[in-house]
Amino acid sequence: MTLFSYVEFCLYEALDDMTNFQRTYSIGEVEIDGAAIYHTTGLRERRDHCTLFGCTREPTGFDTNRDVFVGVHNGLQEAAVPLAGRAFNSVAHGWNPVGSHQLDLRLEPGEEETFAFVLALLEQPGPTVDRAAGHALLARYAEPGAVWTAFDALRERWRVLLDGLQVDCPDTLVRRMLNTWNQSQVIATFNLSRSASLWESGIGRGMGFRDSNQDLLGCVHLVPERARQRLLDLAATQLSDGTCFHQYQPLTKKGNAEIGGGFNDDQLWLVVSTCAYIKETGDASILAEPVGYADVPGSRDDLLHHLETSIAFTLANRGKHGLPLIGHADWNDCLNLNCFSTDPDESFQTAGDVEGSRAESAMIAGLFLYAARELARLYTHLDRPEDEARLLAAYDEMLAAVEAEAWDGAWYLRAFDAAGSPVGSHVCDEGRIFVESQAWCVLGGAGAENGRARRALESVQELLAKEDGVVLVQPAYTRYHPELGEITSYPPGYKENGGVFCHTNPWITLCWCLLGEGDRALDSYLAICPATRESRIETYRSEPYAFAQMIAGPDAATPGEAKNSWLTGTAAWALVALSQGILGIRPDYGGLRVDPCIPPGWDSFHVTRRFRGVVYEIGVRNPRHVSGGVHGLTVDGREVFGNLVPAGAVGSVVHVDVELGG
Amino acid sequence: MTLFSYVEFCLYEALDDMTNFQRTYSIGEVEIDGAAIYHTTGLRERRDHCTLFGCTREPTGFDTNRDVFVGVHNGLQEAAVPLAGRAFNSVAHGWNPVGSHQLDLRLEPGEEETFAFVLALLEQPGPTVDRAAGHALLARYAEPGAVWTAFDALRERWRVLLDGLQVDCPDTLVRRMLNTWNQSQVIATFNLSRSASLWESGIGRGMGFRDSNQDLLGCVHLVPERARQRLLDLAATQLSDGTCFHQYQPLTKKGNAEIGGGFNDDQLWLVVSTCAYIKETGDASILAEPVGYADVPGSRDDLLHHLETSIAFTLANRGKHGLPLIGHADWNDCLNLNCFSTDPDESFQTAGDVEGSRAESAMIAGLFLYAARELARLYTHLDRPEDEARLLAAYDEMLAAVEAEAWDGAWYLRAFDAAGSPVGSHVCDEGRIFVESQAWCVLGGAGAENGRARRALESVQELLAKEDGVVLVQPAYTRYHPELGEITSYPPGYKENGGVFCHTNPWITLCWCLLGEGDRALDSYLAICPATRESRIETYRSEPYAFAQMIAGPDAATPGEAKNSWLTGTAAWALVALSQGILGIRPDYGGLRVDPCIPPGWDSFHVTRRFRGVVYEIGVRNPRHVSGGVHGLTVDGREVFGNLVPAGAVGSVVHVDVELGG
Repeated sequence: MTLFSYVEFCLYEALDDMTNFQRTYSIGEVEIDGAAIYHTTGLRERRDHCTLFGCTREPTGFDTNRDVFVGVHNGLQEAAVPLAGRAFNSVAHGWNPVGSHQLDLRLEPGEEETFAFVLALLEQPGPTVDRAAGHALLARYAEPGAVWTAFDALRERWRVLLDGLQVDCPDTLVRRMLNTWNQSQVIATFNLSRSASLWESGIGRGMGFRDSNQDLLGCVHLVPERARQRLLDLAATQLSDGTCFHQYQPLTKKGNAEIGGGFNDDQLWLVVSTCAYIKETGDASILAEPVGYADVPGSRDDLLHHLETSIAFTLANRGKHGLPLIGHADWNDCLNLNCFSTDPDESFQTAGDVEGSRAESAMIAGLFLYAARELARLYTHLDRPEDEARLLAAYDEMLAAVEAEAWDGAWYLRAFDAAGSPVGSHVCDEGRIFVESQAWCVLGGAGAENGRARRALESVQELLAKEDGVVLVQPAYTRYHPELGEITSYPPGYKENGGVFCHTNPWITLCWCLLGEGDRALDSYLAICPATRESRIETYRSEPYAFAQMIAGPDAATPGEAKNSWLTGTAAWALVALSQGILGIRPDYGGLRVDPCIPPGWDSFHVTRRFRGVVYEIGVRNPRHVSGGVHGLTVDGREVFGNLVPAGAVGSVVHVDVELGG
Repeated sequence: MTLFSYVEFCLYEALDDMTNFQRTYSIGEVEIDGAAIYHTTGLRERRDHCTLFGCTREPTGFDTNRDVFVGVHNGLQEAAVPLAGRAFNSVAHGWNPVGSHQLDLRLEPGEEETFAFVLALLEQPGPTVDRAAGHALLARYAEPGAVWTAFDALRERWRVLLDGLQVDCPDTLVRRMLNTWNQSQVIATFNLSRSASLWESGIGRGMGFRDSNQDLLGCVHLVPERARQRLLDLAATQLSDGTCFHQYQPLTKKGNAEIGGGFNDDQLWLVVSTCAYIKETGDASILAEPVGYADVPGSRDDLLHHLETSIAFTLANRGKHGLPLIGHADWNDCLNLNCFSTDPDESFQTAGDVEGSRAESAMIAGLFLYAARELARLYTHLDRPEDEARLLAAYDEMLAAVEAEAWDGAWYLRAFDAAGSPVGSHVCDEGRIFVESQAWCVLGGAGAENGRARRALESVQELLAKEDGVVLVQPAYTRYHPELGEITSYPPGYKENGGVFCHTNPWITLCWCLLGEGDRALDSYLAICPATRESRIETYRSEPYAFAQMIAGPDAATPGEAKNSWLTGTAAWALVALSQGILGIRPDYGGLRVDPCIPPGWDSFHVTRRFRGVVYEIGVRNPRHVSGGVHGLTVDGREVFGNLVPAGAVGSVVHVDVELGG
């Protein structure tokens, strides 16, 4: 029997000013060394890696030229080499190099033979392929069982990584998502942000400022050192007036001048993510790290200075209702209140003159409340009461504006447009209620004292919660409103215009947790949870293990169909909502807090949580079948008052027993 | 019999800060109206077009969902609809919409039926598909013969366009290239520059400044009005110090801040292209057009000011040998003398600090000579003798520096590196001779009086001219030289490192014309001419009708293999070299000049040339079998002294008879 292996190499020759690729058509090269096929860019210096495709069994032939293996006019269904039954030993120079081994096997009945193919990125010290390293790599897997040992090691590496957060609870899907898939997805979003993928092409976009800050919330417990560096990189793209480059290039760490700034929520996310980092790690030293502003060469202002600059920017840029000016857009990039575009060739993201415009965002107001309170609590932790009081005064002022100007009667307004008219109000003919301002005003603490938080959430439940999740806006826009921008250009039911824009849904989950509604919190988590879609996969049409950016809403032609999976902020927020909201295992400045909001039907659950070098084994019992409230908490058998778990010794395992019903 | 039509639509949803695409996965929509299948972006406003795929015969079914037509797991070789033998009338929403008609035909023996498929981009006034326009378009082609009439009209449109320059000469390939293919390629390069194509992905690059100026040389006779606008657009990306954004985005017409400027030849190409435009059109009014500098908001300096600023920049930025400083690079983007890069993640194009660096370019010196002389002659034409004298004084000063410092004994040096060592000299161990400095020093007039021009060209012939054209450098670099940059990182024989980088070859053709060597001029034209490759197509592996960027040189693993066809400056320069150099039909400020340099073996040739609204029918006879020199010239039967054809009346046809051998 003759077997042929086959891989297609794909290396790019040159990365030219970060946004342009030339494919290896020109100069990709291969080297063949027995069973090892190497693919290089063909560039001879500054080259520090190559690709190896090898086999642990000695091949009887090889091919590396795709035109030879496949045939110039064939498809892979009828590739030339398998049709011919033999390799042609072709050596590729440029174009699309492939790797293929010919293996001739003779097996008697019942006989078996084991061998492995190895596909590897090999680092090398100089321009020359390190054949000795490739040979050693193949030799390492030559022994039967070595491959399985390696897979075991890989599994173990993931197990160790993921074991820092594991849950055992009555809901199978919750277990499956939290323990494996959601955690692996947050690493993908942290690494790739919204970069080139199945869904996006071109790398001009780079990493989004607000995206990356939010992505970090989901994986700071997994990769705290990398999160630290990312925070400093992000802060370094802030300008001295407080605005931020909306996007930056991860290799150069420079902001994208083409799109610039002017997205007036951006800087507040830096406050949120920095506080999350410190709550997870306890490492407040990051605040003193020198960073500096992108527009001030040589500046070395520390990270805390950046956070204060962020807060100050919002305070200095408020409109006539006392709410923050929106700029090009806030979190909803498609709500462009200062754009008024009529030119199809124009980007909504950068069109329009935002200088001097008065459009205001209630969503940014809510985000400001959240961020200012986080920073105030950080100052409490740092024992800086004057700074805390200053932040809380700013908080109170913004809260007063929100309650005085942004309440529409049954929910919070979304914004005031450039003419001062309300957006997301019962007076609108379409786009009467938006999810973002309900989520962020409530998460920021608005409506907590006066019942509006609950009223707003009930409106969400009544008007926005659909079978496939909470849609972003209702009624969806049926015509283009130049004063509202891109969102009104989308077909109803898709993307921001009435689609289930999943990113917003975990915010609502967190709101339900705030309100102590465990059933609704879990329902809202499950509504967009991909693991629930296995039985509806023909409709869902996306991976049942990765959150998607969007699920088409009921107004769409294809309701329930998911699109743009993987690189979405939903991953991070869903993990936060589930682990910190529903399960209530929440890092805080002073330690780990336990404050669940679960379905009353759950009898118990157990969480393993690695936190600041200690493993906490947390058993939560729910004998009274409530949603939350800690009735009793013991740590290694000793009773503790409240819901904050005292820190254990680094390296130790601490057993926490919690009884709900307080 | 059942037929199925099939096209794949590909529209992008959103152009986001010019460098990022989201595919129609999200929201592309189709509409079916009988035989008309429309594909739209799904965006409802600011939409001014859609795609129509229609059929003039009533279909019995349709499909627009690729997954339905092809099948989720099938390939096009075994698409589901043809396998099933019937359409499924699927309606796509997003993803990859396709268009397919099912047509049921019944033909008796000998019977035939004619119908047409129409694929069109339909402009429409608003967001709604203009079905009436689509219907009318299909109706227009319903009548048998209407399609052929339309093709005739298309052919006629091209005929009229291309008829402005047609040759009849003894060489079949020259006729084929000039009359059709070379002219159509220059329109492609003018439209697309080096943008996204088979070879490049990402649109971050946009249009190159020097590329676009050179592309314009080839098609100013075809699209003079568009060339005028392009010149003004390009000039507007120049900065007030004379440098230029190296690339710019054609939609926004803004320079790319990421790559910036510092390519010290860029601005001189603007002089060359502007002079070419005026020589072709006689339209010196462009010099007074307000343009302004990219870094001076509101500036309105005219185009002539820009040309002077370009000249002044070079004069103000010379090194210790009196030659122009090279900056990041000159025309050869890969010769990076101030880069010294050791970081694989760094772009050679932008790495290195060019401020204060002293590396000098003999190629820019030659280009300066050429540009300064062009501008001096323009001033002569404009009757501004003081400006002319000023330019000629600068010319003389640069010429003296070139002759004193850049002559290596048998050819011109390429450059002095940052340490002051010669590049492209007999003292180098590799990279001893480069083509660019020979071409541009000679084209700029260096070596004309002292025999060095001929000596340099003989060196090119001896050391660089190979079977597949003139290679860029010899010996090719075999190791990385940090002081020389990217060129030395390429494998020998490919791209700039000893490949036939075709763009340079027509320069050499023009040099041979200057020296009166008709045979060598045509040989050098034919050496890279794609039409000559039909018999060697298995080696050439590229279109035999479009110039390629590169043909692998003898040092390569695949000598003779062409890569990166179509979008190359070779197209424009080859057209200039053939029509203005070899055939010698050359626009000049005062009119059309006839100054051929043909193979002595040619008995005669005939050129039709549209020029400033007059059609010149130019017959050139060569009874003495010489290369050039006008012995006699008659215009509509009247003798004319010299080789400048007096202007005819606009709209007239002028008959010119030329006898060579003067």
